[in-house]
Amino acid sequence: MSTMNKQWHLVSRPTGEPTPSNFKLVEATVPELQDGQVLVRNHYLSLDPYMRGRMNDSKSYVAPQPLNAVMEGGTVGEVVASKNEHFKVGDKVVGRGGWQLYTLIDGAPRGVLQKVDASQVPLSAYLGAVGMPGVTAWIGLNTIIEPKAGETIVVSAASGAVGSVVGQLAKAKGCTVVGLAGGPEKCKVVVEEFGFDACIDYKQHPDLKSLSAALKEACPKGIDGYFENVGGITLDAVLMRANAFSRIAMCGMISGYNGQPIPLQFPQLILTNRMKVQGFIVSEHMQFWPQALKELGAGVATGNLKYRETVAPNIEAAPEAFIGLLKGRNFGKQLVKLI
Amino acid sequence: MSTMNKQWHLVSRPTGEPTPSNFKLVEATVPELQDGQVLVRNHYLSLDPYMRGRMNDSKSYVAPQPLNAVMEGGTVGEVVASKNEHFKVGDKVVGRGGWQLYTLIDGAPRGVLQKVDASQVPLSAYLGAVGMPGVTAWIGLNTIIEPKAGETIVVSAASGAVGSVVGQLAKAKGCTVVGLAGGPEKCKVVVEEFGFDACIDYKQHPDLKSLSAALKEACPKGIDGYFENVGGITLDAVLMRANAFSRIAMCGMISGYNGQPIPLQFPQLILTNRMKVQGFIVSEHMQFWPQALKELGAGVATGNLKYRETVAPNIEAAPEAFIGLLKGRNFGKQLVKLI
Repeated sequence: MSTMNKQWHLVSRPTGEPTPSNFKLVEATVPELQDGQVLVRNHYLSLDPYMRGRMNDSKSYVAPQPLNAVMEGGTVGEVVASKNEHFKVGDKVVGRGGWQLYTLIDGAPRGVLQKVDASQVPLSAYLGAVGMPGVTAWIGLNTIIEPKAGETIVVSAASGAVGSVVGQLAKAKGCTVVGLAGGPEKCKVVVEEFGFDACIDYKQHPDLKSLSAALKEACPKGIDGYFENVGGITLDAVLMRANAFSRIAMCGMISGYNGQPIPLQFPQLILTNRMKVQGFIVSEHMQFWPQALKELGAGVATGNLKYRETVAPNIEAAPEAFIGLLKGRNFGKQLVKLI
Repeated sequence: MSTMNKQWHLVSRPTGEPTPSNFKLVEATVPELQDGQVLVRNHYLSLDPYMRGRMNDSKSYVAPQPLNAVMEGGTVGEVVASKNEHFKVGDKVVGRGGWQLYTLIDGAPRGVLQKVDASQVPLSAYLGAVGMPGVTAWIGLNTIIEPKAGETIVVSAASGAVGSVVGQLAKAKGCTVVGLAGGPEKCKVVVEEFGFDACIDYKQHPDLKSLSAALKEACPKGIDGYFENVGGITLDAVLMRANAFSRIAMCGMISGYNGQPIPLQFPQLILTNRMKVQGFIVSEHMQFWPQALKELGAGVATGNLKYRETVAPNIEAAPEAFIGLLKGRNFGKQLVKLI
């Protein structure tokens, strides 16, 4: 009896915003297991802004997403068949299973699948606060911003999977933390649930002057660190309020992903304020992952580290959920439920 | 018998390029020496791009140049009268004597005047390769760019007092060094005299596409480090050719000093290339000065470290020389001879 898989392929490269026509849902039979292979039934798919960049056929830090192939992406799931001594049926695993229900994995390259303990941390959290987004927050904050107690840290996309963790970690270090998020509902949760000192609704401040004034009010002592998830005028507005020797961790520039790049108006402020602006990719700092995952896992298990998820109901909904993610329609980690 | 001093005052703040009318030449009698004071006859005045920024009444890393007061600036000279036990007539000194023939100094704040040895290093070099510009080059290169042998380092304003030292220090570390300078004459000296591997005449490449293509040709292995002295499209062109994990030391953005800021077109490349972009001010890293000055002084004394000077003939010529400096009319360190 053969198992039917459903998978999303990228069939054309978007220009500007992706549309549903860039994707195609394909059904395929799961092949017979060979020696060494593992079959995973994916439970959740992670949707992330970086996927938009990979849809372009241009130089980036990773190869482009191939056309007419399964969309790549992080997943959590359960081993349902195994001809590999390291995995047994029932194991919960995190990996890069892609936009599909089942993933057949050659067990040989170690580390492709990681077994996780789902008894104290919900399985989906391994795609969020205790996964790549959480570690991204940890590394950018601890290795680039290096905040000291009493400093003011600003976080964009503060209600998101990365930003919400950045803010909670910075608060735990004794910082004043100011978030930026879109809309009053998100801002309310950023303050009341994630514990930020303040949150600016950037939709109320569509121009640089207004956003800069809002930051001035929220950060009366200036800005010492900024965790950049969005780019665009937010970066300029932060530069205008940055203190001497402030640090910017550049993690994402989602506002520029869909089209033409957004210029930085005042690059000379980097010099005037003797700032450090540093880009980083979480996968290039593997040495920090064990410590970060340990701290983040403990935070979630104890309830001290809070997070939100937006879950699309089934694999058919993945492209629309991804398009919505790029428009900020999600709240917290955007997932797709696959089971 | 009283000594007559000549001094340039700033009498109005320039909007855009400075003009001679922003300055006024004032004659004044040198006051009688009080106990503890030292009178210095200045031999050379240093003209530097940072002075333009200080003429604005705006937030910067130092207080603005006051109006109707002597223009501040670095000088070398000789003690001609002293009522201070630490200085005797004939001592050669470097300090911040300002745009004037004589400077009366309260000896009390130690460190305001530094005695220097003019037997092996020409006195004027203490304003250039063995002074603030040389130390600026040393600190930006060694503490931010941290070049490794085999890497490609790009230096803007390569014929200037800072850039020429950056390139020579990077060559000594085994790097491929590419300069940017204005005009074939400067480029020739950058390669033949300062030993850069190549020099791009930026005046031949007035737009981003052309400059980027020139950098691609001169840096076939990409750019690992960039010493930024100019800003504007050069910074964008470098970003377009920057390698992963490349570093930019932001030292000056002279192209934006005279007017409106020049936007950075592609800030997202900082993220894509996981770059570090860091601004610095030489006076905030005093811990490196002794080591830097020792190495730079040895370089000049042995003839290994080469430099050029452009010397205006007398104090009357200072404003025109400064205006020319901002337009790149100088070649190497811009000085004014005061004796």
